[in-house]
Amino acid sequence: MSTPSVARGPYRNGIRRREQIVAKASEVFGELGYVGGSLRTIAERVGVTPASLLQHFGSKEGLLEAVLEDWSEQTGAQYLGTDLHGLAAFEAFRELMAFHLEHRGLLELFLTMAAEATNVAHPARRFIQQRYASGLARQAHALSEARDTGEVGPLTDEQIGAEASMFYAVLDGLELQWLLDSRVDLVGLFDRYLDSAIARWRIGLPE
Amino acid sequence: MSTPSVARGPYRNGIRRREQIVAKASEVFGELGYVGGSLRTIAERVGVTPASLLQHFGSKEGLLEAVLEDWSEQTGAQYLGTDLHGLAAFEAFRELMAFHLEHRGLLELFLTMAAEATNVAHPARRFIQQRYASGLARQAHALSEARDTGEVGPLTDEQIGAEASMFYAVLDGLELQWLLDSRVDLVGLFDRYLDSAIARWRIGLPE
Repeated sequence: MSTPSVARGPYRNGIRRREQIVAKASEVFGELGYVGGSLRTIAERVGVTPASLLQHFGSKEGLLEAVLEDWSEQTGAQYLGTDLHGLAAFEAFRELMAFHLEHRGLLELFLTMAAEATNVAHPARRFIQQRYASGLARQAHALSEARDTGEVGPLTDEQIGAEASMFYAVLDGLELQWLLDSRVDLVGLFDRYLDSAIARWRIGLPE
Repeated sequence: MSTPSVARGPYRNGIRRREQIVAKASEVFGELGYVGGSLRTIAERVGVTPASLLQHFGSKEGLLEAVLEDWSEQTGAQYLGTDLHGLAAFEAFRELMAFHLEHRGLLELFLTMAAEATNVAHPARRFIQQRYASGLARQAHALSEARDTGEVGPLTDEQIGAEASMFYAVLDGLELQWLLDSRVDLVGLFDRYLDSAIARWRIGLPE
């Protein structure tokens, strides 16, 4: 795929090989899970020995860490914009759903890791828990901003926390449905949910 | 745990052993996934040899099939009541959420299998796809009954299909959040979602 036109040092080659390994490991963990995705399978896809993987990442857990970091970088740029406030922080997810359609592998990786991490002994559990905690806190904060600036009605903090949980639940659940059946209209269903949620928030929730 | 007070034939013993194997396999597949949960691990927990598992189930896929059938039986009785029509078919899920709290393992098994089955080559994919298809169809049918009897407003068939998808998405997503953090109020959040969905359906959706 590449025809190097400039000289590349061994350091550069090492970085490229590392990237290749992470890409293949993401694929394999997404398809077979972390427990089921063996170093041997990953090494075969890269075209190296399992020992070579360990040379780069120390252990299978080290490789998992690199895979999760890579996942964060690739998806984070899409919707973790720090400049988004209020409802804009929700609207941004419409584009993320469209991004998913083009990056099925990243989504499969995340949901497979999240489901596996329901096992308390799973090495990705802390990473996944932190993703949820920070994601929920971010959306709750954005919704409280929307309340404070009058974009939505006078929601209580408790209602805001619950709405953030439901928002994340719908994201995950629709993504899972789409991964299981590509005829599912991921973008359309998400848009519909967000429209109805914003309409409810604007009116103000009962209680 | 058992002190047999009556004679049991070899047939009966065979059934009991089969049940033990299915129970341990459910545990292991829920914890480690189907790909990662080896016959050896399952056999060790039962206290038999891997060869003995194969004697009962023919193959690992045969064992998976038995595990999924068992899952259906254990959870089906809780909420797949054929007598539920209209909104009652949604209300029944409130109890299912409470059931989940007491049967974490069954939920972990299902979500882990569902996430693994996003891989098109996964042996549980057809089972999982059929569960979603029949579940979505059932809820859509119940919601159309609710419309036809006037329990809710005049929803279109398209809206009904979308509401069924969102309903399932919220279920899965909240269950996943709870499995990742047991402080999540699964029952309370689900109740809140269903209350707000029913309120929206009663008013009739825009468009």
